[in-house]
Amino acid sequence: MELTAMPLEPQTAFVFDLDGTLIDSVYQHVLAWQEALNDDGIQLAVWRIHRKIGMSGGLFTNLLLRETGIKFDTERAERLQRRHAEVYRRSLKHVRPLPGARELLSTLSEAEIPYAIATSGRRQTAAPALEMLGIDVARTAIITRDDVQFAKPEPDLFLAAVDRLGVSSPGVSVVGDSVWDMLAATRARFLGIGLLSGGYGREELERSGAYRVFADPADLLRHLDEVGGRRR
Amino acid sequence: MELTAMPLEPQTAFVFDLDGTLIDSVYQHVLAWQEALNDDGIQLAVWRIHRKIGMSGGLFTNLLLRETGIKFDTERAERLQRRHAEVYRRSLKHVRPLPGARELLSTLSEAEIPYAIATSGRRQTAAPALEMLGIDVARTAIITRDDVQFAKPEPDLFLAAVDRLGVSSPGVSVVGDSVWDMLAATRARFLGIGLLSGGYGREELERSGAYRVFADPADLLRHLDEVGGRRR
Repeated sequence: MELTAMPLEPQTAFVFDLDGTLIDSVYQHVLAWQEALNDDGIQLAVWRIHRKIGMSGGLFTNLLLRETGIKFDTERAERLQRRHAEVYRRSLKHVRPLPGARELLSTLSEAEIPYAIATSGRRQTAAPALEMLGIDVARTAIITRDDVQFAKPEPDLFLAAVDRLGVSSPGVSVVGDSVWDMLAATRARFLGIGLLSGGYGREELERSGAYRVFADPADLLRHLDEVGGRRR
Repeated sequence: MELTAMPLEPQTAFVFDLDGTLIDSVYQHVLAWQEALNDDGIQLAVWRIHRKIGMSGGLFTNLLLRETGIKFDTERAERLQRRHAEVYRRSLKHVRPLPGARELLSTLSEAEIPYAIATSGRRQTAAPALEMLGIDVARTAIITRDDVQFAKPEPDLFLAAVDRLGVSSPGVSVVGDSVWDMLAATRARFLGIGLLSGGYGREELERSGAYRVFADPADLLRHLDEVGGRRR
């Protein structure tokens, strides 16, 4: 029997979301949005903001428009995003990498398993997070909101990341903490791996397409072999 | 046929949790705990704090001890609680009643349906929230951590609330946003009604015993007739 003639699953590659997946910043982002909206006279319950975090800013403001009936012109949207960034920056001193995040990335590097980072945030907002993680930005595939026209739940961020990695699509797994990550992964025909570290429930992630759910990066690292995380 | 001879379900009564159920304060509490823990050299991912909010402070510190291996003596526990209260107080200006909370309570009052409020928080911490809700504290059954020996998920807070109301147990529904509310309701043999407004997922609440889940107080008010909310 010629084993070499069997079709092989391509090399696994991972695409990581950033906030809530590698760094512990979701709750700070949520309250920064609440404060920015409040300052603009818009009251929205905090859990509703939490459930929209991680989707593109454009879709976020569209949803706000639909839920609050308030008109979002470009000026207001830009003012809100500026204010959010300001408030978030103040809380950065309490933001840390999630447990196991650095170890997970260095394990992948050592095993020569390709990975990329794809975030709905702007490059400027992402910079301190990448620094905390000790990521060599010159040598890592990093895709931000600045690189694509449409953000999650559109699949563009993940498709751009895989394109940058130069790997074959069928081996790609997307690791994220939000429903939007899982939906975008599904739309790109990648596998979705959910992490609870962004504060969503396990079933929310499973119902939006996650084929496995782990607690946090440390837990994913412990189960890496189950999701194709080995050298080919 | 004598309809009057049929056994009747007793008058419905509601016991409400406070934070995340009537006021939008869970995320502020979560980040205040994170800051208090951080200041004490204890790092814990924010989502793990979120999942413990609403349980008794004693159990919370026991769980912390188990997860972090750090010893919590009385002095440290008190220092943390003081620091949490300080940080939380700073964020109070962004805390609001949840949509529909005031309307729900006044609808119950008008329909002469008894209700109480039972919170794991101290009376001092609860005071500003009760004021925001426009609650007449002299005429409302309010049970706080100061009134019972054990807090949620022990059922004591809810049992004390029902005792204060002087109603019959089989008609009681507990409205809460957390797994601990639902577990404590089940242990007291009350029905649990879950609200998503504390930021937990629907399935987390269902799996911990909620027989109905609504988005927030406004959504519960729209469906009040489905859960026994009518004058007898």
